[in-house]
Amino acid sequence: MSIIEDPKIVEITGRTRVLGILAHPTEHVKAPPGINRIAMMRGRDAVMVPLNVAPADLESFVASLRVLKSFDGAIVTVPHKQAIIRLCDEVSPQALAVGAANVLRRKPDGRLIGDQLDGIGFVEGLGDQDIAVSGRSVYLVGAGGAANAIAFALAEAGITRLTLANRTVEKIETLAAKLKGAYPALDVAIGTADPRGHDLVINGTTLGMNATDPLPLDASLLEQGMTVAEVIMEPEITPLLQAARETGCRIHLGRHMLDHQLQLMANFLGL
Amino acid sequence: MSIIEDPKIVEITGRTRVLGILAHPTEHVKAPPGINRIAMMRGRDAVMVPLNVAPADLESFVASLRVLKSFDGAIVTVPHKQAIIRLCDEVSPQALAVGAANVLRRKPDGRLIGDQLDGIGFVEGLGDQDIAVSGRSVYLVGAGGAANAIAFALAEAGITRLTLANRTVEKIETLAAKLKGAYPALDVAIGTADPRGHDLVINGTTLGMNATDPLPLDASLLEQGMTVAEVIMEPEITPLLQAARETGCRIHLGRHMLDHQLQLMANFLGL
Repeated sequence: MSIIEDPKIVEITGRTRVLGILAHPTEHVKAPPGINRIAMMRGRDAVMVPLNVAPADLESFVASLRVLKSFDGAIVTVPHKQAIIRLCDEVSPQALAVGAANVLRRKPDGRLIGDQLDGIGFVEGLGDQDIAVSGRSVYLVGAGGAANAIAFALAEAGITRLTLANRTVEKIETLAAKLKGAYPALDVAIGTADPRGHDLVINGTTLGMNATDPLPLDASLLEQGMTVAEVIMEPEITPLLQAARETGCRIHLGRHMLDHQLQLMANFLGL
Repeated sequence: MSIIEDPKIVEITGRTRVLGILAHPTEHVKAPPGINRIAMMRGRDAVMVPLNVAPADLESFVASLRVLKSFDGAIVTVPHKQAIIRLCDEVSPQALAVGAANVLRRKPDGRLIGDQLDGIGFVEGLGDQDIAVSGRSVYLVGAGGAANAIAFALAEAGITRLTLANRTVEKIETLAAKLKGAYPALDVAIGTADPRGHDLVINGTTLGMNATDPLPLDASLLEQGMTVAEVIMEPEITPLLQAARETGCRIHLGRHMLDHQLQLMANFLGL
């Protein structure tokens, strides 16, 4: 992007490369300003815009991205992270293991390559706040893309015990089996809404995004000394984090994951 | 778009509406900076990006725009102006008559509406310079998209007599027939290179863009009291306008059309 005479306008021209954030809805997504700032700081003529596509339309829309020659790739987020896997021409081993991708890149020949950076972004965010992971026990709620990715990245980062909780147990049974297959030394259990007995408690669901959501776990059982972490970015302080703070737990905001993901994603998208 | 702390960055968020310029290639297109500036000046959270799609892929790509809920519309330019007509769910009478559209708008239900603003932009440009159109007689050279669009817009604006001239007579016979069908009261004639007897003389061809081009009409027959208008923007003073000025005619520059088109397109795209 070049700066035209009005210093407040970043000029988008016919040469600017287009990036997207593929979500539904898109109103809550946080990545575009950060990615666009990275692009500008790296001197890249590229811009990220929201691509709001409903699940039923995802397949046909993604097919059309193959022919959009000005398009270089997209961040993929809720609710498309799982569905995108089978729509890519190629996916990374991490994305395949997790069963979800959160980025896709368009090659000049139109092929779409999916990858999964959620988990590594989350773990890097914890590390950046000096929250140890290796050797710790973790309670993780959720069975969606974020929870899957975080589980694999935590296992890779050396946690010793992982308790998985979710309202639908079937989904975490599948996750538990995949984790045991990939990390035989990891102690994996299926838990309840009770998070007691863990160093790190993580909400990997979207519960807390809306004011009327139930809590993802029984917050009355949180204990001092726990660290309670979120993947939700908006609101910054979810009801879970509020309860954790009142209990005297350390809290870890969803945005730390984003900070690390952004650099990882920018790299993947060719910025 | 809101301005974040770095005053050189216009912030694109998940709420920003996406506009496109649909072309192939896109490297040469001029509209995005102007449209994005209008959006910012009007306080609209929208951004135009290049959509480079080859003709063979146009149909499938345009179908995908119906499901892109963050998309509000696009400018359509070379080589898609004619092909886009049958891919829209609805086109304006003006676009249908001309056989080409240069804008499309996406309704919230996904329907795509095509329109043709070239001619209206030209007529508004005349009005802005206090050049009367209603009740006047016009001599128009050309049979391409611009000439077609201008002919229909002039008819709509109430001219009483129109003489069409072109080196290939077949094309203007088709245009004349379409005009007579749509505007039965309009006196339409097929003319020669002789522009005498008209209030307004318009070059709707590209002749004059290159220094070696022949004149589009017999400039020795121009008369004082005529207004001579161009669609060519570069050079600003074509040989035709130079001859007209020397004869004592009023002249009207091609850039007036573009100035009005951008505003009209911005309006049509909901800015």
